[in-house]
Amino acid sequence: MKKKIIVDMDGVLTDVYNRMFEMYEKETGRRLTAEDIAGKLEEEAFPDQRRWVSEPGFFRTLPVMEGSQEVLKKLNKKYDIIVVSLATEFPNSLTDKLMWLHEHFSFISWKQIVFCGDKSLIKADIMIDDHPKNLDNFKGKTYIFTQPLNLLINNSRHTRVNSWAEIEKILIS
Amino acid sequence: MKKKIIVDMDGVLTDVYNRMFEMYEKETGRRLTAEDIAGKLEEEAFPDQRRWVSEPGFFRTLPVMEGSQEVLKKLNKKYDIIVVSLATEFPNSLTDKLMWLHEHFSFISWKQIVFCGDKSLIKADIMIDDHPKNLDNFKGKTYIFTQPLNLLINNSRHTRVNSWAEIEKILIS
Repeated sequence: MKKKIIVDMDGVLTDVYNRMFEMYEKETGRRLTAEDIAGKLEEEAFPDQRRWVSEPGFFRTLPVMEGSQEVLKKLNKKYDIIVVSLATEFPNSLTDKLMWLHEHFSFISWKQIVFCGDKSLIKADIMIDDHPKNLDNFKGKTYIFTQPLNLLINNSRHTRVNSWAEIEKILIS
Repeated sequence: MKKKIIVDMDGVLTDVYNRMFEMYEKETGRRLTAEDIAGKLEEEAFPDQRRWVSEPGFFRTLPVMEGSQEVLKKLNKKYDIIVVSLATEFPNSLTDKLMWLHEHFSFISWKQIVFCGDKSLIKADIMIDDHPKNLDNFKGKTYIFTQPLNLLINNSRHTRVNSWAEIEKILIS
């Protein structure tokens, strides 16, 4: 039986922080660096992020994380992949996120997609996520995908991965 | 620790079949009865249902199942309730379903809602659903909520409930 992997969307498949850096610069004139927001909660780093993500269209046009399409396609053959996104807090995000997945990850079927408000409801063997709160509550093997907001996290239970190329090395090679 | 119950939306919280009877009558001039569609798959009973449910707005205005609001409110105090809906097949259904829940079941938080394509991914102790396919794959205690399409199902593993009043009697009294 194939092992089941929960793959996060924002910050793992979508390069959402890149977009947030852009939004912040557009609205304040100041370009933040990864160091500026290292270890901060999203709402501290980007005080207006709840307004941004509530707007229809925000999630529809996010850039794709480098290497994610090629590697997830390979993982999808070897593992049972489920893309799980915390999305039910923002009603307008749902259809946008689904259409985004259909456009950029067309090999992921609608049966492999979960939008929820609590990832601990989902059964799986492996989790790839950038949010420590999701990983901490997960009982299987955990991979923390490097993003500015988790840079200061040093939980030895979670294996840090800095790119999809690293994920490929660990889970496929 | 509270027991966890997966509650289905369509045909359990929403009276979706009532709406489908109306749509069918509106488009064909013929009023179907529960007996006409007893035991049929949805796509046999209502050949145009995929067109109906794909349209924006279809799920936003569905009638609420009789008794569901009062009883689910009580269950929500005694159990961990998760509302789980197979929704990722129909992109336009997602935001509509979430807004419908917020309107009619405002005591259910976004953390208790799951939209997915495969209910077997979700961990729980009890499932209330009208679709045998969801119940058959569930390992916990199962309640089959009577709808025309499951009238001929006679699986002794699933306890049949005909109304929310019956659910209240079994799970609360």
